[in-house]
Amino acid sequence: MRATFMYGPGDVRVENVSDPRIVEPTDAIVRISLACVCGSDLHPYHSMDTTDEGVPMGHEFLGVVEETGPEVRGLKRGDFVVSPFAYADNTCPICRDGFHTACPHGGWYGAGGVGGAQAEAVRVPQAAGTLVKIPADVDKALLPSLLALSDVYLTGYHAAHMGRVEAGRTVTVIGDGAVGLSAVLASRRMGAERIILMGRHTSRTDLGREWGATDVVAERGEEGIAKVMDLTGGEGSHVVLEAVGLMPAYEQAYGIVRPGGIISRVGVPQYEEAPVGFGSLFGKNARLAGGPAPVRAYLEPAIADVLEGRIDPGRVFDAEVSLERVADAYQAMDERTKLKVAVRP
Amino acid sequence: MRATFMYGPGDVRVENVSDPRIVEPTDAIVRISLACVCGSDLHPYHSMDTTDEGVPMGHEFLGVVEETGPEVRGLKRGDFVVSPFAYADNTCPICRDGFHTACPHGGWYGAGGVGGAQAEAVRVPQAAGTLVKIPADVDKALLPSLLALSDVYLTGYHAAHMGRVEAGRTVTVIGDGAVGLSAVLASRRMGAERIILMGRHTSRTDLGREWGATDVVAERGEEGIAKVMDLTGGEGSHVVLEAVGLMPAYEQAYGIVRPGGIISRVGVPQYEEAPVGFGSLFGKNARLAGGPAPVRAYLEPAIADVLEGRIDPGRVFDAEVSLERVADAYQAMDERTKLKVAVRP
Repeated sequence: MRATFMYGPGDVRVENVSDPRIVEPTDAIVRISLACVCGSDLHPYHSMDTTDEGVPMGHEFLGVVEETGPEVRGLKRGDFVVSPFAYADNTCPICRDGFHTACPHGGWYGAGGVGGAQAEAVRVPQAAGTLVKIPADVDKALLPSLLALSDVYLTGYHAAHMGRVEAGRTVTVIGDGAVGLSAVLASRRMGAERIILMGRHTSRTDLGREWGATDVVAERGEEGIAKVMDLTGGEGSHVVLEAVGLMPAYEQAYGIVRPGGIISRVGVPQYEEAPVGFGSLFGKNARLAGGPAPVRAYLEPAIADVLEGRIDPGRVFDAEVSLERVADAYQAMDERTKLKVAVRP
Repeated sequence: MRATFMYGPGDVRVENVSDPRIVEPTDAIVRISLACVCGSDLHPYHSMDTTDEGVPMGHEFLGVVEETGPEVRGLKRGDFVVSPFAYADNTCPICRDGFHTACPHGGWYGAGGVGGAQAEAVRVPQAAGTLVKIPADVDKALLPSLLALSDVYLTGYHAAHMGRVEAGRTVTVIGDGAVGLSAVLASRRMGAERIILMGRHTSRTDLGREWGATDVVAERGEEGIAKVMDLTGGEGSHVVLEAVGLMPAYEQAYGIVRPGGIISRVGVPQYEEAPVGFGSLFGKNARLAGGPAPVRAYLEPAIADVLEGRIDPGRVFDAEVSLERVADAYQAMDERTKLKVAVRP
């Protein structure tokens, strides 16, 4: 089959590889219907160490179950499914807590002998705990929104959930990428009173306004902080959803968070150390939350929200390419000419 | 009057200064009945820059109101009061949120022209918002426990509150100082199922056991982490209360926190930057909370708990000195021959 690999910064290739096969009795093989490129795929696209091996790419997909291992219950050949971007058993104490991305039997696509989803097919470990069925006869117009549940929308949702967004809260979202916009949509669904979106790409912030942003702040750094403090009467934002992952976004976050407020991060941090002492978080009792979204915990109600028309998160997709042209998708997202690109095998 | 100043590491002096006077109409002057030395006073005792000015010391006290400014409502000369370690107006939106230590009209004893409480008297800004009355005829045996509400017990309580301790939780307390032990007592009050106390001073951990610790771990660093992981079946602790403020304690905290769990810090961080990226907090959705305790938010119910015998936080005091001998108190606490020392002017 054909599958996508990254060999170094800017070096994305589609290659012939063996079809995936059942390895563990809890595996399934899924034929990919629709996949996409993630904002987080751009981090290695910028800065990964060059390798001769190639790293399998892609972790968001809709597909059709082709084969199941002998221990996979509740799924059969032909089922149409959506996958969270990480697999998990969905039964252990950590999954029962709702933190599937830390499941001791879970893991990531494209690592540890599991392939990527920017491919014709993929092996899904812990398939019964991971994959969720969607109606085979679903309106094709809803497919982008269902695909968005695989990662981007529910990552924005996770940010808002861990930020404890609720009625009456002022929420500031840092980043107008697909996850930031999804965080706006999720915050509106949770009843946020005011949603300030920090971003400067008008085509994106326009979608943010449609999805519930009440204010847009184009300024960054100290200027951006001053603007948000001004908009919040000098008190800061109850909740800050950080959907970028770079240090300047983190610095903005602790600059604008209200005393006792919560910074919830879902942009994968491109740093390990950061300010957390008296001058940043501690002095004002600001809280820090977030991490890889446990998509599986949120998937069923979100599928219902899409099928019943309450949310339309698929609007983040503004282009689609064939698998053979996946490198073009990376380039377009990197150059910000496209927000998020679907990939059809 | 006599008052305590610190001039450099290990250099604590009691000196003659002018009596404090009303400066703002919201001020009160309080004659100190009982004060004490705080674990946080030991940080400058170790490492402050030497100064010719002298820094006024002390921020925990019981006392008697001597004079009130014209705008102070609800307090009068002769009232017996307890003060939180920080003053605040108790009326602004930030105080109403319960985060008094970030009150825009608040501040710290010993800074900004306000004296310290290891003294015969002190000026209290925002007196009406800050001071809380206690019965003048209170049993003298309860005074240490009431003094403990000024900072140490309610700092431990704040750790547990921000850590969302509740029934069924496993809580690990790092540090067997007076705040750590207070965090044990508060966690038990909040219904924690299991309380692991990390500390190696048996006389202290014995009080911790009396107050509710179910396990004591004397090991530190990697060994301590392994021990707690073992005690928690490899899953880690739902809540970690960090009552030290040094980097090794922070590293222990993220090593033992369960995925999705909360690290709540109340030891004043002696670092500004710390690990928060994928390998420490983000990867397992661990949350970071805490800061200077908004004691005022918790004071009334805690006073009732002491007066009605439900808690005895004053047991952290194992010595008392006269004001003239306050330097001995610093030395004894620094050498760990005493846990917490009261100071009587």
